[in-house]
Amino acid sequence: MGKNLTTRKEDYSKWYNELVVKADLAENSGVRGCMVIKPYGYAIWEKMQAALDRMFKDTGHENAYFPIFIPKSYLSKEASHVEGFAKECAVVTHYRLKNAEDGSGIIVDPEAKLEEELIVRPTSETIIWDTYRRWIQSYRDLPLLINQWANVVRWEMRTRLFLRTAEFLWQEGHTAHATEQEAIEEAEKILDIYTEFAEEHMAVPVIKGTKSEGERFAGAVETYCIEALMQDGKALQAGTSHFLGQNFAKAFDVKFANKEGQQDYVWATSWGVSTRLMGALVMTHSDDNGLVLPPKLAPIQVVIVPIYKGLDQLEAISAKVKPLVKDLRAKGISVKYDDRDTHKPGFKFNEYELKGVPVRLAIGQRDLQNDTFEVARRDTLEKETVKASEVIDHIEELLQKIQENIFNRALAYREDHITRVDSYEEFKSLLESKGGFFLAHWDGTPETEERIKEETKATIRCIPFPAEEEDGKCMVTGKPSARRVLFAKAY
Amino acid sequence: MGKNLTTRKEDYSKWYNELVVKADLAENSGVRGCMVIKPYGYAIWEKMQAALDRMFKDTGHENAYFPIFIPKSYLSKEASHVEGFAKECAVVTHYRLKNAEDGSGIIVDPEAKLEEELIVRPTSETIIWDTYRRWIQSYRDLPLLINQWANVVRWEMRTRLFLRTAEFLWQEGHTAHATEQEAIEEAEKILDIYTEFAEEHMAVPVIKGTKSEGERFAGAVETYCIEALMQDGKALQAGTSHFLGQNFAKAFDVKFANKEGQQDYVWATSWGVSTRLMGALVMTHSDDNGLVLPPKLAPIQVVIVPIYKGLDQLEAISAKVKPLVKDLRAKGISVKYDDRDTHKPGFKFNEYELKGVPVRLAIGQRDLQNDTFEVARRDTLEKETVKASEVIDHIEELLQKIQENIFNRALAYREDHITRVDSYEEFKSLLESKGGFFLAHWDGTPETEERIKEETKATIRCIPFPAEEEDGKCMVTGKPSARRVLFAKAY
Repeated sequence: MGKNLTTRKEDYSKWYNELVVKADLAENSGVRGCMVIKPYGYAIWEKMQAALDRMFKDTGHENAYFPIFIPKSYLSKEASHVEGFAKECAVVTHYRLKNAEDGSGIIVDPEAKLEEELIVRPTSETIIWDTYRRWIQSYRDLPLLINQWANVVRWEMRTRLFLRTAEFLWQEGHTAHATEQEAIEEAEKILDIYTEFAEEHMAVPVIKGTKSEGERFAGAVETYCIEALMQDGKALQAGTSHFLGQNFAKAFDVKFANKEGQQDYVWATSWGVSTRLMGALVMTHSDDNGLVLPPKLAPIQVVIVPIYKGLDQLEAISAKVKPLVKDLRAKGISVKYDDRDTHKPGFKFNEYELKGVPVRLAIGQRDLQNDTFEVARRDTLEKETVKASEVIDHIEELLQKIQENIFNRALAYREDHITRVDSYEEFKSLLESKGGFFLAHWDGTPETEERIKEETKATIRCIPFPAEEEDGKCMVTGKPSARRVLFAKAY
Repeated sequence: MGKNLTTRKEDYSKWYNELVVKADLAENSGVRGCMVIKPYGYAIWEKMQAALDRMFKDTGHENAYFPIFIPKSYLSKEASHVEGFAKECAVVTHYRLKNAEDGSGIIVDPEAKLEEELIVRPTSETIIWDTYRRWIQSYRDLPLLINQWANVVRWEMRTRLFLRTAEFLWQEGHTAHATEQEAIEEAEKILDIYTEFAEEHMAVPVIKGTKSEGERFAGAVETYCIEALMQDGKALQAGTSHFLGQNFAKAFDVKFANKEGQQDYVWATSWGVSTRLMGALVMTHSDDNGLVLPPKLAPIQVVIVPIYKGLDQLEAISAKVKPLVKDLRAKGISVKYDDRDTHKPGFKFNEYELKGVPVRLAIGQRDLQNDTFEVARRDTLEKETVKASEVIDHIEELLQKIQENIFNRALAYREDHITRVDSYEEFKSLLESKGGFFLAHWDGTPETEERIKEETKATIRCIPFPAEEEDGKCMVTGKPSARRVLFAKAY
């Protein structure tokens, strides 16, 4: 029974689009560029949220909520910020509809025009720093460590489910500090949290680094990022953490009295990850049979499928399975017993393969007689027969093994696709034939960066951090360079 | 040390507004009608969310996420729905800003006008039923039991923190069923969940009922609600659950093949509670000293304040307190040990009273010598001295007692403020002198309902459910009536 899924080799992009829809993660809505996140996809996002939220709280952050609307004048206060976001804003201009007088239907009421237009937040620095001005007077009010789970809107022209959508869900942290050093440490601490989350929960290996000036967040002094590599050799930025200096404090006049009683501007960071991570998750691990989910984020970790003829056999199987379900749940393992009589085992196998359930148990007449289960793992598609008395321990171990295996597999792929190059010709050639990350010397100028981008579509993903110093020459201009930077084509 | 809080008696409305801000729950933002939910307030909302989310999932509901924008044409498809919501919509008309050519700043780019305006969702029936059309083909796809946690916007002219804001947070459930009976049962099941949540978590007693036709949700066949009574004798609608009949299925052409293979329109419900519940929570229990929080929703259930002179004494106290903190946390009790040396005990006592922390422990030199703690409860302000060896059991019991006590106190207030009246004169007189709920006969006509509203500002809060039949005469017109309905002035 096939899944009618385009293979990765045939068309990676099409494979991704089909898989996201067929595995019930998300679909396009009737609203341009906005997606519907379906229950199965949302359940994965909830697991991501729970893990991240725990990590933020364990490091002293609190959640809060700020308005979705940003007055146009706020956006304009930080010069580079407005440059970065003005071109893709959803703008609210009116606050009422009415019936057209000519009976042609419902129209915007021209009398209900806002005095000042409101922007649907593309990110919340401006509205939050306008608030922080009221919250911060003294060093005793610092640090302020706040996170928000919210929806944001950026009017992208070309959208793809999870990877680039007009509306997306994310968390955005916004912190305020008394010193530059403390703010930088915060931005780096968050980068470590993102790295730990990506590698240990998503099983996605990432490279940490800082952005070149041209790729920095609009309004940041330094942007830290983590970069992952997808199976088609393209990079995906999986999270960013910004050291904002005093830019927003100055734009919104947020000063504090320091211990010496002097007034100083506050130091800031902001940082975020979004539903884009769902795209990274799918593209890192999945295969031509469907999703492969890391056990730590799988909404269903174990599915049990009975193989039977007639309801008598099903009853005998169920009597065996139900205590097992209970025991697994007691261990915190999420398990589904799919005893639907409306679908055949083969259909169910297919469905759970497509949905990436890490472990599948099957039990038929022979298993009943032998007191065994057939245990299949999604990552390798291997099957084995396991004694009923050992099955719980086996599953616990297997979930851990799968989590490790898919991380190691992704890491091996990345290690195999990270190439040190010293000539621009070699770079261009390997970029096309092999793809992946390239470590190369660059002269540090925006002009060279731009030229490489125009000629190859590759961008500087990051300057790896902590930096590994190495004298060399820019692969394009031959000018001196003190370290290699990471290039790739990217999502 | 005073809290400078207006008393309830002086000015209930002012007391509420001050308390919400001073207790760090929320504040107004620079955006008209939109609030900032501060960390302490948001922590309470998170506890509400967690409890409700668990109850929804335990009854088979799944979370999903739908777009924030609704095309204008969608809103118009259900006739009474658009009537109900068109007058208070935030309308997105453009998708880009640009620099004004005359250098006057940033303006809306007239070339980036949307072909069709988008409404920021005031509620999501239309976008969701447009999606359900793709998800539902057969009875096998039903029931569809979906919930969404989201922000919504209704352009209210007069706003108050939590009670009525342009943007608010809520959950909205949207379910689809094969039969009318099943949909009605779902709407009633959710009403039971809301009742259980209000009474057992918020400690807010509520009256269940159905709305009169005039107060029904725009697009509903029947609206079920729970109504709570605030300390000023005004009612507050705390949650609604709507049986939508086939209205939205017809508007969005959502049909399914039933077991007999015939096409039929799907039956629907929708239901929601919002951050308005925060207002209900504050107004039900709090007093002139500040918030009173039910232990089940308190972000900090127990606070421990050391009373000392010099750091030696503090060290001795901390040695005693830290193991206690650990033991309380192991029992799932959230506890804060406030050993800040920058603030005096009196200041701290005040702060935690204002913030409604249910239990406060204090420990000074005498307590150290006697191996005791001073235990104060927020609801009654009573204090007692408890042996250290018994303090954990004591706290566990006390948290339960406080939860029960504030519920019973609120229930007693409501029972004392629910009056059966048979004459309109008596109704009008008692409404002014005493306030509260009134059970009275009504002739069932919108005209009489409207007249009462105009003359007294009281509305029909609900027709209590299950209904208690009782023959009587309408208090206004004398026409026959089969049951009493519940009147009150309301938020």
